[in-house]
Amino acid sequence: MDEDFIFDRATHVEGTSDGAWRAEIGPEWNIFGVPNGGYLATVGLAGLARLVPHPDLLSVSASYPTKTEPGQVVIRAETLKIGKRVSTGIARVEQDGEPRVHLTAMYTDLSLARGPTHLENGPPAIPSPEACVRAEGTVAAEFVRNFDMWLTPESAGWATGRPSGRAEMSGWVRFVDGRPPDPASMPLFADCLPPAIFNLIQPAWTPTLELTVHVRTRPAPGWLQVRFTTRHLQVGYFEEDGEIWDERGTLVALSRQLAQART
Amino acid sequence: MDEDFIFDRATHVEGTSDGAWRAEIGPEWNIFGVPNGGYLATVGLAGLARLVPHPDLLSVSASYPTKTEPGQVVIRAETLKIGKRVSTGIARVEQDGEPRVHLTAMYTDLSLARGPTHLENGPPAIPSPEACVRAEGTVAAEFVRNFDMWLTPESAGWATGRPSGRAEMSGWVRFVDGRPPDPASMPLFADCLPPAIFNLIQPAWTPTLELTVHVRTRPAPGWLQVRFTTRHLQVGYFEEDGEIWDERGTLVALSRQLAQART
Repeated sequence: MDEDFIFDRATHVEGTSDGAWRAEIGPEWNIFGVPNGGYLATVGLAGLARLVPHPDLLSVSASYPTKTEPGQVVIRAETLKIGKRVSTGIARVEQDGEPRVHLTAMYTDLSLARGPTHLENGPPAIPSPEACVRAEGTVAAEFVRNFDMWLTPESAGWATGRPSGRAEMSGWVRFVDGRPPDPASMPLFADCLPPAIFNLIQPAWTPTLELTVHVRTRPAPGWLQVRFTTRHLQVGYFEEDGEIWDERGTLVALSRQLAQART
Repeated sequence: MDEDFIFDRATHVEGTSDGAWRAEIGPEWNIFGVPNGGYLATVGLAGLARLVPHPDLLSVSASYPTKTEPGQVVIRAETLKIGKRVSTGIARVEQDGEPRVHLTAMYTDLSLARGPTHLENGPPAIPSPEACVRAEGTVAAEFVRNFDMWLTPESAGWATGRPSGRAEMSGWVRFVDGRPPDPASMPLFADCLPPAIFNLIQPAWTPTLELTVHVRTRPAPGWLQVRFTTRHLQVGYFEEDGEIWDERGTLVALSRQLAQART
């Protein structure tokens, strides 16, 4: 991609002499002072993607054993299998010699997918972007500035002290500089809205323990329609399930994360 | 656990001189001639679990780069972080020197969890086991014999040529020999029912590409109430989401897998 775009600069990797990659984690992806987990996954994958012959991210599971700080990271990637249709590999994002993020990912050529289709639901029923509320930085001003992000009025309730009481966060999102969405950016989009449980409990940092994203198709250029929900908050642990649809109304990705609410 | 139980014998690992483990994949866990993916995950985790101080599996993501065959496997495990509350590690299940399964897992002490609870739904509304239909081996006779498994009449429709038309598979399950369920066995329970899409499309082998399981609590002894659904089958790729509740009606685990329907 074109390094005129913010996201491509932010996921730029530079080869090192020992077969690893170096990247720079900028503070503009911080949430509550900590780099966004979805963004960190896209940086690690930028290394792994160079080792596989398939163009499209199909699936990634990211774990975050230790907090990453803004600054330099080293990415060590390895393929486990280069298959005809699917390749699998792992990548480790290290800082100060310690693993901070561990990724397992599969790549394929999504344009060659074949098989039956049966969808129980379409894109979320949400008002047009003009009828939504602009997500502006409250706790994550710098992060949000990378996007053009609009939340449904109900979803945005928490920001003005009127949480909806339903753990749902829905709306429209795209990169602020017009970069089209693609499979590689899906882990970031899957983790870019405020947590859905902000409409249920007092907003606070909710560390992601594990994030999985399954990419289903290459998105059309334009807006993404997104919907994140938490149905099971139990003794502090909760899942956040995401659906990402493109502007045409085609399902692009499903995500799930396991996170913790400490309040 | 007690090796009088089938599951504990089937996940028995033996240390090797180079710090790995050896295990035997028995044919009694095959589905369509291939060892069940959830079972393979439990075998790999039996190695990793020995390296972490925390007693309970919290989360696992399993990828299956290459088909495993029944027979001997070697498990190479490594911790990424031993934390105060959570430990993270990876394990690779190898056969003939090749990686067949890759696992990333977190462990914790679930009895120490603290935090808010808010559940959108309780256990699935299903009839009692007596009003359900015994799942007996059709395509996976040997596998099913490890369990006491009862499907709701609607879920069981596919087996008698009357698929419900809804991609849902719900019912009751427990180990046939009375072994109580626990966090370590959740990856198997998360993958033990027939695929939910058998009620939607012609039953056939649907290879699992990725399986993630989040364990929320230690289950009570007795039955598990389970519900698996597929909402988005798109051009052959589909997710299967699972909820596992214990006999008391407490949420034990959530699962999601990415799989492929090739018909």
